[in-house]
Amino acid sequence: AAQRVTRFATTVFSEFSALAARHGAVNLGQGFPDFDGPAAIKEAAQRAIRDGGNQYAMGAGARELRVAIAEHSARFYGQTVDPDTMVTVTSGATEAILDTLLGLVDPGDEVVAFEPFYDSYDANITFVGATARFVPLRPPDADHAQWWFDRDEVRAAFSPRTRLLILNTPHNPTGKVFTRDELTFLGELCAEFDVKVLSDEVYEHLVFEPARHLRPATLPGLAERTVTVSSGGKTFSLTGWKVGWVIAPPPLRDAVQRAHQFVTFATAAPLQAAMAEALRLPDAYFTELTASYAAKRERLLTGLREAGLTAFAPEGSYFILADITRQGFADDVAFCRHLVSKVGVAAIPPSVFYGPAHRHLGQGLARFAFCKTDAVLDEAVRRLRAGL
Amino acid sequence: AAQRVTRFATTVFSEFSALAARHGAVNLGQGFPDFDGPAAIKEAAQRAIRDGGNQYAMGAGARELRVAIAEHSARFYGQTVDPDTMVTVTSGATEAILDTLLGLVDPGDEVVAFEPFYDSYDANITFVGATARFVPLRPPDADHAQWWFDRDEVRAAFSPRTRLLILNTPHNPTGKVFTRDELTFLGELCAEFDVKVLSDEVYEHLVFEPARHLRPATLPGLAERTVTVSSGGKTFSLTGWKVGWVIAPPPLRDAVQRAHQFVTFATAAPLQAAMAEALRLPDAYFTELTASYAAKRERLLTGLREAGLTAFAPEGSYFILADITRQGFADDVAFCRHLVSKVGVAAIPPSVFYGPAHRHLGQGLARFAFCKTDAVLDEAVRRLRAGL
Ligand SMILES: CSCCC(=O)C(=O)O
Ligand SMILES: CSCCC(=O)C(=O)O
Repeated sequence: AAQRVTRFATTVFSEFSALAARHGAVNLGQGFPDFDGPAAIKEAAQRAIRDGGNQYAMGAGARELRVAIAEHSARFYGQTVDPDTMVTVTSGATEAILDTLLGLVDPGDEVVAFEPFYDSYDANITFVGATARFVPLRPPDADHAQWWFDRDEVRAAFSPRTRLLILNTPHNPTGKVFTRDELTFLGELCAEFDVKVLSDEVYEHLVFEPARHLRPATLPGLAERTVTVSSGGKTFSLTGWKVGWVIAPPPLRDAVQRAHQFVTFATAAPLQAAMAEALRLPDAYFTELTASYAAKRERLLTGLREAGLTAFAPEGSYFILADITRQGFADDVAFCRHLVSKVGVAAIPPSVFYGPAHRHLGQGLARFAFCKTDAVLDEAVRRLRAGL
Repeated sequence: AAQRVTRFATTVFSEFSALAARHGAVNLGQGFPDFDGPAAIKEAAQRAIRDGGNQYAMGAGARELRVAIAEHSARFYGQTVDPDTMVTVTSGATEAILDTLLGLVDPGDEVVAFEPFYDSYDANITFVGATARFVPLRPPDADHAQWWFDRDEVRAAFSPRTRLLILNTPHNPTGKVFTRDELTFLGELCAEFDVKVLSDEVYEHLVFEPARHLRPATLPGLAERTVTVSSGGKTFSLTGWKVGWVIAPPPLRDAVQRAHQFVTFATAAPLQAAMAEALRLPDAYFTELTASYAAKRERLLTGLREAGLTAFAPEGSYFILADITRQGFADDVAFCRHLVSKVGVAAIPPSVFYGPAHRHLGQGLARFAFCKTDAVLDEAVRRLRAGL
């Protein structure tokens, strides 16, 4: 095997999904709903398959989807997006992230990212021969109602070799939604060091009042340097379709597109047609989605607390982090292994989302997903209360 | 932009598909059929979307598809494949090729490949920081009924730094089907230099009598060192679905899977379910597919020759190369630009499939695809006869 893959074992998502299946555990691990998105969108995909649209889409994505992505950006964020020069459709956000790294980062460059991180960031930084500089998010405390970062620590991570900052808002797994003030600080830092930004916003529609999703690319100074990555999987409860996209100013999008054409070349055509319809759903769809997830968030938060865990209320995403330091386990991996095999609930150990230097910061946490039907959430809570 | 993408402009496929659309040309350029695959398979995909199967598939691929890939390998090649340790499903063969390079090749390594090549090989070799050593295939001549290679030239391309040989059989764009004798020679060379093999076989079912597709991985000495890449796009006339796969002995497949999990993570779930059914279609499907393409090959060969071109009869694939040296153009790109804008037929200029040293070998050629309905092939020939 090549050096670059030897550091990365099987993803924790694959590992714990397999463990959940083996033990018949209630699966609050990998982030996918146990219900499907809108019937009308599934019907649109069936129509696309029936009526043609089964040959290669354009490499940059079907034009109708690129137009729908632009319209969606205008509707929700007042962002002006040219569908022909600023959008590339990808096979999920995971591909979009790799394309961005391949398109913008040279070997020897440095990439700054926050910990905990979605694990592909770290692997993709290695794949392009760059060096990661991680800055930990800190948990809520007496002075901070939410996860926060030390500005001096971020500044210290930047250097003349920094090429890219990776943001993720709403943030997996903390549920943090970055504020205007934080993003402005980060944007100024990036301007000072001439650094580009990758903003991973796949949970953009899963944000709970009073938090509001801010698209970094709409802030002054960030527009011209930001590659926005998102996907339809979470917003439309169709994670298995793997339709993602990149939105970026033409020069950055051109670099990403050049990489994309040699990564997957194009994305599943009939699912693109349906995703275009999904992005055009009326506002009510998005409002109801958020309301439904807000209720699920409360349900699981309450349940985790009843089971004796200290759970942080997320501002966004469909994940809850819980403090497990009083559960008497050596670390989060040991806790989650016990949980899946003995208690019958699968959760994700977050220490894998930290670099070696800060791994201990994740060892007192476990991540629970609430993108599940109420009955499943209730059963998980029942097992946790009985087993913990 | 990163250095690695600056060398690679827009793919010739995107460029000529766009030109074909702009000029209303008959499109014999990019290789996709203008007809869809079996209705039963399209119905299977619609069923999968309707009845669930819209959430993340397993990262390595849906098990039923991995089992179907194993069965297909046994049925057609007598190859024994363990679906759990030897298969990874990818978002098209293009991703499978990148995953293989990422998983097996380190920066500074050398990769040997034949020219002309599918353009992503060259880009992907650059992406992983390796150096390409290209060996040209030579056109048929008095001594060779088909495209051939000079064995000394291949041997000279190998060195202690060689890590991988990329094969493509049936070969795009020459239509060459590698013989047992050739593969045995290459296998011995790879054994001598301890080199792995990536065998791209996406045209495996498009082979014309008396040629027969030989899967390199079934030959002695090659089995343990070969990563076989294929996909359903060409075999089932569903190029837009982007479902591909890798078959390899467990240690090699493990390296590829480690890369795959951070490239796309997983592939469109409902299309995997349908592709499993496709691979289980009765032998008659495959026989009829080949017969139908054999007839189309004759139709276009005859037509190109009537239009005054010297066309090479391919043993496999759905492409025909024609000699254009007597057409009075500076090179193949000039010829194909003229063809698409003035004659109304899109073809692909093959010089882009050569490295800089051998680019001239492609400049006297044009590639025509015959994966089109007979009426479209006839209209293309009519235009070529009128316009050349
Ligand atoms: C490939 S898993 C994608 C991210 C996610 O859903 C998770 O963090 O669980
Ligand atoms: C992305 S195009 C895939 C290969 C092909 O179809 C071609 O060579 O035309």
